[in-house]
Amino acid sequence: MLNFSDRLIESIKKKNSVLIAGIDTSIENVPDYFIKRFYDREKSEIDNLKTILFEYNRRIIDAVEENVVGVKFQAAFFEQYSYHGFEVLHKLCEYAKNKKLVVIFDGKRNDISSSAKGYSNAYLGETPVFGRKIRFFEFDAITTNPYLGQDGIKPFVEDCERFKKGLFVLVKTSNPSSADFQDLTVEDKYLFEVVAEKVYEWGKNCVGKEGYSDIGAVVGATQKEAAKRIREILPNSFLLVPGIGVQGGKVEDLKYFVDSNNMGIIVNSSRDIIYAYKNYVHSDFEKSSYLASKSIKESINAAIS
Amino acid sequence: MLNFSDRLIESIKKKNSVLIAGIDTSIENVPDYFIKRFYDREKSEIDNLKTILFEYNRRIIDAVEENVVGVKFQAAFFEQYSYHGFEVLHKLCEYAKNKKLVVIFDGKRNDISSSAKGYSNAYLGETPVFGRKIRFFEFDAITTNPYLGQDGIKPFVEDCERFKKGLFVLVKTSNPSSADFQDLTVEDKYLFEVVAEKVYEWGKNCVGKEGYSDIGAVVGATQKEAAKRIREILPNSFLLVPGIGVQGGKVEDLKYFVDSNNMGIIVNSSRDIIYAYKNYVHSDFEKSSYLASKSIKESINAAIS
Repeated sequence: MLNFSDRLIESIKKKNSVLIAGIDTSIENVPDYFIKRFYDREKSEIDNLKTILFEYNRRIIDAVEENVVGVKFQAAFFEQYSYHGFEVLHKLCEYAKNKKLVVIFDGKRNDISSSAKGYSNAYLGETPVFGRKIRFFEFDAITTNPYLGQDGIKPFVEDCERFKKGLFVLVKTSNPSSADFQDLTVEDKYLFEVVAEKVYEWGKNCVGKEGYSDIGAVVGATQKEAAKRIREILPNSFLLVPGIGVQGGKVEDLKYFVDSNNMGIIVNSSRDIIYAYKNYVHSDFEKSSYLASKSIKESINAAIS
Repeated sequence: MLNFSDRLIESIKKKNSVLIAGIDTSIENVPDYFIKRFYDREKSEIDNLKTILFEYNRRIIDAVEENVVGVKFQAAFFEQYSYHGFEVLHKLCEYAKNKKLVVIFDGKRNDISSSAKGYSNAYLGETPVFGRKIRFFEFDAITTNPYLGQDGIKPFVEDCERFKKGLFVLVKTSNPSSADFQDLTVEDKYLFEVVAEKVYEWGKNCVGKEGYSDIGAVVGATQKEAAKRIREILPNSFLLVPGIGVQGGKVEDLKYFVDSNNMGIIVNSSRDIIYAYKNYVHSDFEKSSYLASKSIKESINAAIS
């Protein structure tokens, strides 16, 4: 099996897209006509929730498939429905994987030793159960938070090597108060630069045949100055770039995020795609999401080509 | 309803204990005789897993109840079994809550805006579903990671105020590589001190009638020097202290963690309690966990009185 970075590059070339659709759906934002179509009064509220959440997101995936290299599931939007939401996530992960999409779990998990290993078992590796090993999820990559340092990252990196998976470490996030800690000056550097240097170290042994590391960084689209610096520190890592659109990141700034080959990024868009029906064709969310993803893909390609 | 900090103080006084039992059970560490007793060959492996995980942990809770002020569930150990594990977590949370234990979700969740709100809905607040609001979990408090700054913390703090819940922000963790970032020097301070200062700010509006904030900090038991400094910055916050025992933290150092009233800490012990049967009575894990929790409680009380 190819390394994560090699699989990602292969998919990007095939799709001619670096766009990732962020599947961050809350049931409150699913169009009424769709809820009415699937709501079954004979069933429990929770069963209806699970059905509608799956059916809506499944159709979004179908609609955008042609225009995206992968999908990213924001864990919070599933966890907000407790284990019922997690069950839907499980089905959607499988669904997207069967379509040969790159599938990312955006859970920003972080802990140490056996706890970090537990998370890694769940989302990258496999969990021992009664003497055999079960792979519960088929994600290609996950996001993680670096605050705990190397002990917290190592279990994930080891599973990336072993199972050919990818990791995106939060380096510089898109939100205004990312400055609270990430922009603190440590000697003559910003904290996020020190984190990026560590990401480089952690990823040194996970380099695919195309020369890219499987250990990448999350860098918000609003952070073009930081991106220039991070790109210098991480010349051969993929950057996962959220925050274009609603969050204020500009597609034209993506030229500061790419590497010297105009490569090395994947760009997430969530609300502009999954709720595109609010801006496009109100009666047809699938067509709206298709049109939105096509338009975003094309504007990204124009910006980085 | 009382603030989280007031409820916590009330429980500590009633139980004469600041000990928290960390429910971090992997099925591989449940004693064979217990698995044999509950394993039903007519049922699926997953159903057996769920039953045994619940039944074992439920008995641990029963066994330690008298000696602990609360229980802390490490999310990773449930997530490693996907949504099946989450379902068990849901049942155990309810079970512990019915015993009037303080119940903490240790998930170190972190994200921004609507994603942080999703996590907060799940574990502290309530989630809108088809026009009504559902409270999925009855946790009293959760842990969170501060790397994203105030935007990532605010949704949690707001729900703490609204629903009388508590938050423990990672400040200084117990692992060796906590030094990677937390000990970087920012101007004339360590990063963890800057984080602690922010925790103080975030918690200023959530002070209970006993004068303690509902927004506390996680400070590893191995970090006594850091604890002295954090205690100065956070004079009226609870510190959640993991890492005694297996991880190397010493009970006698807890005197550096308490406040001027010899209060303001809760101390987690996981493996020494849940797997106490490995050191005590091999044939009776409940008795072992009881004895271990009693002994740890007493040594903590001796150290901080």
